[in-house]
Amino acid sequence: MTINLKNLLNPKIKISKMGDFQELKQINGLSISSVSADLYGDGRDDLTLFYFEDGAKYAAIYTKSKIVSDSITWNRKIKNKFIKALVVNTKNANTFVGKQGLNSLRELSKSLSKQLTLKLAQAPGGASEVVGPNEVIFASTGVIGEEFPLQKIKTTIPHLVDQLRNNQNKFIWFKTATAIMTTDTKPKLAYEECEIGNKKIRISAIAKGSGMIAPNMGTMLAFIFTDANIPSVILKALLSRNISTTFNAITVDGDTSTNDMVGIFSTSSVKNAKIYNVLDPKLKNFEKSLHNVMLNLSKQIIVDGEGAKKFITVNIFKAKSTQGAKKIAFSIANSPLIKTAVAGEDPNWGRIVMAIGKSEEYIDINKLKISLGNFTIVENGELAKNYDENLVKEYMKWDSISINIELNIGKSDFTVYTCDFTKDYIDINTDYRN
Amino acid sequence: MTINLKNLLNPKIKISKMGDFQELKQINGLSISSVSADLYGDGRDDLTLFYFEDGAKYAAIYTKSKIVSDSITWNRKIKNKFIKALVVNTKNANTFVGKQGLNSLRELSKSLSKQLTLKLAQAPGGASEVVGPNEVIFASTGVIGEEFPLQKIKTTIPHLVDQLRNNQNKFIWFKTATAIMTTDTKPKLAYEECEIGNKKIRISAIAKGSGMIAPNMGTMLAFIFTDANIPSVILKALLSRNISTTFNAITVDGDTSTNDMVGIFSTSSVKNAKIYNVLDPKLKNFEKSLHNVMLNLSKQIIVDGEGAKKFITVNIFKAKSTQGAKKIAFSIANSPLIKTAVAGEDPNWGRIVMAIGKSEEYIDINKLKISLGNFTIVENGELAKNYDENLVKEYMKWDSISINIELNIGKSDFTVYTCDFTKDYIDINTDYRN
Repeated sequence: MTINLKNLLNPKIKISKMGDFQELKQINGLSISSVSADLYGDGRDDLTLFYFEDGAKYAAIYTKSKIVSDSITWNRKIKNKFIKALVVNTKNANTFVGKQGLNSLRELSKSLSKQLTLKLAQAPGGASEVVGPNEVIFASTGVIGEEFPLQKIKTTIPHLVDQLRNNQNKFIWFKTATAIMTTDTKPKLAYEECEIGNKKIRISAIAKGSGMIAPNMGTMLAFIFTDANIPSVILKALLSRNISTTFNAITVDGDTSTNDMVGIFSTSSVKNAKIYNVLDPKLKNFEKSLHNVMLNLSKQIIVDGEGAKKFITVNIFKAKSTQGAKKIAFSIANSPLIKTAVAGEDPNWGRIVMAIGKSEEYIDINKLKISLGNFTIVENGELAKNYDENLVKEYMKWDSISINIELNIGKSDFTVYTCDFTKDYIDINTDYRN
Repeated sequence: MTINLKNLLNPKIKISKMGDFQELKQINGLSISSVSADLYGDGRDDLTLFYFEDGAKYAAIYTKSKIVSDSITWNRKIKNKFIKALVVNTKNANTFVGKQGLNSLRELSKSLSKQLTLKLAQAPGGASEVVGPNEVIFASTGVIGEEFPLQKIKTTIPHLVDQLRNNQNKFIWFKTATAIMTTDTKPKLAYEECEIGNKKIRISAIAKGSGMIAPNMGTMLAFIFTDANIPSVILKALLSRNISTTFNAITVDGDTSTNDMVGIFSTSSVKNAKIYNVLDPKLKNFEKSLHNVMLNLSKQIIVDGEGAKKFITVNIFKAKSTQGAKKIAFSIANSPLIKTAVAGEDPNWGRIVMAIGKSEEYIDINKLKISLGNFTIVENGELAKNYDENLVKEYMKWDSISINIELNIGKSDFTVYTCDFTKDYIDINTDYRN
């Protein structure tokens, strides 16, 4: 995306530090290693290991697709609420590969367990605890239906384990976020600090995904690491509660990958007050930071949609229900005709009316208000009295456009983020794989 | 669309007479007039009157959009199962124009009633019956939110009525089908003959619509005329029963117009045996012909999608339910990533797997079979043994591509028709209105 984030004129949009990369900080209890298993054949990093010395409480939410990667199937079978390692490979989705998929993961988890034990035994003070194969989870992103590169990955595991470092500065995080990319044009990083009780908590998070390029490669992966001590069941509740307004509130082309995964991992290296309940007021500050991190990464994924030139925020206000607001928001955000109009900098509000109507949600036309940015277009069922198309045409030249719909029939709001639909999208997607 | 229909290699696709226009024949009891009310400013025909001398039994199905044209609102208020006239205007959608919309139709229906009575009184033998304002229905297609051109249309009504002719040959039908076009590149015509009892029945039908260009102008209108004598309630049942596999089985970009309408009108000039029941076996032959006409027009609408270069048939076989088959079919047919892959002549079956998965319908991967044309790609959860990408790449160069999904978990089939997604689509839609 060629948006100059620093020049974003719409004050409502705040993406990371306006286009700069945030500096992520160390999460104690976490070690990371990113190396090349030569999966792309060009030597770039493609295999990453996240290792939790004392284990991690964790929660994950996976794609709703009914056809999923074997890596997700593996993770779903792991019933532990406590894991020791997360392995991420790119280039290959480990999807639709027959029995080879799960067999490969079984072999890799054993191999990793063995190598980690070897490495730990050599460390000063030694560590007796073995990482069990069922304490390893996986994430894969890449092409569907190509043989999983078991041998290449397996032979790289000793090197992968050898490269583990238990401290991360901003450069390590940048390298890690880059190592999980496929067709992304830049890494996605987000960082927040907060407090639980009187303890300072860090959240370092990375993501990948640029849906427009290809769903095969367009998998959305997000990994959130915190040094807080929060039980897995509460992590799951927090993730579920915040995903609908963040990762599930973005759309690029309405397509869904077989491999999507959002995971949160808590090393518990900070000895904060115990949390027994998701409603605990001590969590309030943490949840706000978690939400910020998730929203920040979500917006970065939209901004990185190849072919996209404009960021679009679709705000629905005063709907009868959140579900209804969401349906209308996605009807607008997924409409190719609206996305091409935005690309053409055309304030074609007739298409917005069309998209509201086709959502099949109840609308009172006489109460409906449609604005682009601060410009009211439609009010009381007709064109606004002071509507000046020339002013709105100027607004449509901005990098970031907001489409605001006030339904005035209830109290529910919902916001969805998307990007425009350009010729580059077609170029990239018709030529992909050639 | 640049498809040469005569060269369509896929025998499954039969569009009209392979690209030639069908010759439509006279429907006794129907008079037609198409003139210019100068709505476009270039003198082309833009206003059409269908007049039924002895009235017509009729049924109509309208858009599911929650925001609809005032012309549809008007029609829905008419409770008669019997009408005398249908007026169709292009250029203006009569949507989102405030009170002006219904007020205009009230005025036009009165004016038309008056003019028709005048004309009929002058005819030899005279006609005493007046066309009541509530015996007139309307269809509008064009830009949303622009003032309805009441004056231009009203002053044209005397001329419109004056031009009425009660016989139609193929040239008149071609002119009429052309007069209801907006951004269509060619008229859409379909004709069938059949029998009810021992009486020969004609069905002459026209349509407009090319969804990709713009939903504002992309309204789908279809008008089916028959000389059969069939009660309105049975016409409605027949229309409902056949629309799901025809007009509701096509998709261009998933967007829905505020003005869509499919209507069927029976003049009853043929005195066929009375039909009391939709299950009457005498209707079988008629229903088959009606279905052919509807499917034929539907395919013509897809073929006329500007920017589209390829016709795509998505066949789902052996699903658990028709509803499930339909959901998977539309998930594939509406996926921009599949439509761009077809435009790029790329047998990217990973995207098909993605689209099946995201439908959220139950799938048994081990039973799933995916073919492109006659080429099996995926079988038993993995790439087919004899899969040869080079052969399939050759197939992808055809004008008409079929995507065939065998689920093998039930007995329900469903077919959806669509077209590919090209750079021309983006060109047309970003530049529209400029």
